[in-house]
Amino acid sequence: MEIQVVKKVLDANLTVAKQNRDRFSRHRVFAINVMSSPGSGKTTLLEKTLARLAPEFRAGVIVGDVSTTHDAERLARSGAPIVQVNTDEFGGDCHLAAHVVASALDRFDLDQFDLLIIENVGNLVCPAEFDIGEDAKVVVLSVTEGEDKPVKYPLMFRVCDVAVLSKIDLLPYLDYNRNAAIAYIHQVHGGMPIFEISAKTEAGFDGWLDWLRKSIRRKIEG
Amino acid sequence: MEIQVVKKVLDANLTVAKQNRDRFSRHRVFAINVMSSPGSGKTTLLEKTLARLAPEFRAGVIVGDVSTTHDAERLARSGAPIVQVNTDEFGGDCHLAAHVVASALDRFDLDQFDLLIIENVGNLVCPAEFDIGEDAKVVVLSVTEGEDKPVKYPLMFRVCDVAVLSKIDLLPYLDYNRNAAIAYIHQVHGGMPIFEISAKTEAGFDGWLDWLRKSIRRKIEG
Repeated sequence: MEIQVVKKVLDANLTVAKQNRDRFSRHRVFAINVMSSPGSGKTTLLEKTLARLAPEFRAGVIVGDVSTTHDAERLARSGAPIVQVNTDEFGGDCHLAAHVVASALDRFDLDQFDLLIIENVGNLVCPAEFDIGEDAKVVVLSVTEGEDKPVKYPLMFRVCDVAVLSKIDLLPYLDYNRNAAIAYIHQVHGGMPIFEISAKTEAGFDGWLDWLRKSIRRKIEG
Repeated sequence: MEIQVVKKVLDANLTVAKQNRDRFSRHRVFAINVMSSPGSGKTTLLEKTLARLAPEFRAGVIVGDVSTTHDAERLARSGAPIVQVNTDEFGGDCHLAAHVVASALDRFDLDQFDLLIIENVGNLVCPAEFDIGEDAKVVVLSVTEGEDKPVKYPLMFRVCDVAVLSKIDLLPYLDYNRNAAIAYIHQVHGGMPIFEISAKTEAGFDGWLDWLRKSIRRKIEG
């Protein structure tokens, strides 16, 4: 019975996700859903990304957290419009569902944006199951988390379009096998594009930004 | 309706959790539920803990992961009996539920143990909601995850008995405010005991082991 209900919840979610997707298409906004474990460096990555893309594109951000507005406060310094969603107002959900994103969208004028970044709740399991209507799903994995998370949390790496390996500035201080990490990602998602970056030093940022630029242009030029 | 079902699931879980708890009492086993984000260093912490406690106590381990037996293989080297649970056989659950733990317990002779370590699925949200009958809940938070996770995932820090701040060997390379981290933990859980450790160098291990020793003795001596 529990599984029946989960299926119903996911089906209802897909209906709203499709409405969100139509909305992004109508307004020609490229929407990305950024997911990761807690503390992988998503917010720092997004701060730097907003700063670097600001001269070229107009961006808005939806930030999902169980609780607090810390991330929204950090991202607000970029000047981009931000909506913080706290899932503890929706039963403490461990993920963003499509209807939660839809209610956040109502607080924006989407015509003002080329890019909408949706920072999901820090969690490698549940957010992978919920389509929110995004154009692309991005998983961020900190190198401090070790090499084998892709095979331990395979759905996340299977559904995402690109992977970002973050915090590479810490590599000299870790026992980390880069080849193993990449092999694990490609074991669950053959050919998945991988960007190895440090949001702190901006090492490796160009590849990530180029992928974003191309994806945004493709969307806004229809 | 979704919330009604969640309540039912949690109520059913509590019934089985109580059975597990009675079972631990009957066999005088001290059971801990170790929770954290993915990649916080739980498995390395447990490898070292098993090695250090082996001369004094007999331990068994239940390892929960969505997928793979990597952690069980690592922990098996300690010589302790291990049962790996993969939640992808239970609908890909993002947490260990009491009935999943109960089925793992059937594969052990609990009279052989003083300590049972249950390594939960890497996730700071959902495992906090599921009582599995443990005597103590432990949250592990890597210093690489930043200071503010306790306020962003408050339920986890509220329900846990002790917190372990792990990977302190990386502190020289991080922008990390130790006082802020401790203040955030105590903001959601006043007086919570905190062990600051490196599983790699075993710095700070004595306090953690002493807490475990005292807790195990209290349980086995009734």
